Amino acid sequence: MKNNPLIFVTNDDGITAPGLRTLIEVMRGIGRVVVVAPDRPQSGQGHAITVQVPLRMKMISKEEGYEEYSCNGTPVDCVKLGFKVVLKRRPDILVAGINHGSNSSINIIYSGTMAAVFEGAMTGVPSIGFSLLNYSTNADFNPYRKFVQEITQTVIEKNLPEGICLNVNIPCVPENEIKGILACRQAGGTWEEDFDERIDPVGRDYYWLKGVFVKIGNGEDTDEWALENNYISVVPVHFDFTAHHAISLLNSWGYHI
Amino acid sequence: MKNNPLIFVTNDDGITAPGLRTLIEVMRGIGRVVVVAPDRPQSGQGHAITVQVPLRMKMISKEEGYEEYSCNGTPVDCVKLGFKVVLKRRPDILVAGINHGSNSSINIIYSGTMAAVFEGAMTGVPSIGFSLLNYSTNADFNPYRKFVQEITQTVIEKNLPEGICLNVNIPCVPENEIKGILACRQAGGTWEEDFDERIDPVGRDYYWLKGVFVKIGNGEDTDEWALENNYISVVPVHFDFTAHHAISLLNSWGYHI
Repeated sequence: MKNNPLIFVTNDDGITAPGLRTLIEVMRGIGRVVVVAPDRPQSGQGHAITVQVPLRMKMISKEEGYEEYSCNGTPVDCVKLGFKVVLKRRPDILVAGINHGSNSSINIIYSGTMAAVFEGAMTGVPSIGFSLLNYSTNADFNPYRKFVQEITQTVIEKNLPEGICLNVNIPCVPENEIKGILACRQAGGTWEEDFDERIDPVGRDYYWLKGVFVKIGNGEDTDEWALENNYISVVPVHFDFTAHHAISLLNSWGYHI
Repeated sequence: MKNNPLIFVTNDDGITAPGLRTLIEVMRGIGRVVVVAPDRPQSGQGHAITVQVPLRMKMISKEEGYEEYSCNGTPVDCVKLGFKVVLKRRPDILVAGINHGSNSSINIIYSGTMAAVFEGAMTGVPSIGFSLLNYSTNADFNPYRKFVQEITQTVIEKNLPEGICLNVNIPCVPENEIKGILACRQAGGTWEEDFDERIDPVGRDYYWLKGVFVKIGNGEDTDEWALENNYISVVPVHFDFTAHHAISLLNSWGYHI
């Protein structure tokens, strides 16, 4: 394993989230750590960047082998500012999370945590997102430290292919019930919206977004299957969104030279 | 072709953007149109959804075969509210744009316009994003109407496979220089950030995000190549982010049953 690696840490639940604090503690046992995380919750921000207002950072602490900053931007902004302004170079690895709630299946597309992971991978840094299937602010992340540590150390040791990053989800069951770590594909799924429509005190309509996740299919090679069966799911993901198998269909429409 | 289709229109540059107004006009020549678009620019919002504040919609106009609403949310919010609250069903097709500026290559991941397109496809609606390679607010979209119309009508006629949507980019050259429409894969590319660091009147640092797009590779099957050679690029994209070819690598790490 690379000696004393430089580890970049971020999340989307914000700088005070227990999931982030646990991740920081685990990473400080592995190497030097730099944290740049949002100053408030940024869940559901996807790959948003901040272009309408300026970005600010605030140093929280700085000591030998450890620096921590909060930022008013999105998780992707945190990665960009962290790499360019704080580190002035690429770290050896990026880890994000531990997210309060699942980023399995289609949840990945809404996730600020996984967007930070994509952003890291897009600049050539091995990157991993960790999520626990528990949305509670008070979730107990301690039972899962050893799995987070093991996966991180494996990636540091073995590296990841260019352009590939990992989406790791952890079932919220007692530690001794976790059966192992499983490489999976992203399950099919969708959110069925059910807006909560209300009237404000001056009589105007407003809506709260809410919905129910609906799984599509139940392949034993999917992250949803792994999680339901008490495995930690690891999905290798990439940011080439091309549906390569559909190009020949478009060729048949005359879309060729 | 399906008679008088119901067409949902949105964008990320906001309800007043000339690119949206052109897209609406073209679509009104094809079928019934419902527009729900952000009330202000939402570029770079990626797949963000609004969960911290309530959503509001404002009716702009309603007549036979045409309805238009603005919304305080992101492009993805507009799709969710539009389908569930305004339409109460799925439209026959979703079109987004015409974006002021490129969504080719890795730009797709930051794009609110393409996020709306993904959101449409995730609910089973054939969905197309259109972008013109001109960031100007005053860009002239008129020369490209016929291409937007042709691609939309082709999709209405032939449909798209489940889970596949289209990322269409149009080179900003005179109409008679456009050589045709080309099915492509997403080119490799990255943004090299170069933050503009400033000091505010009370002495605090702040940063404006800026950067330069750097193409990686130059395959003749990519969208970047097509656009540089005056073709309209059409990339079929999907939201299964799994890097399927990397699963066996993770199996070799012991991540299997």
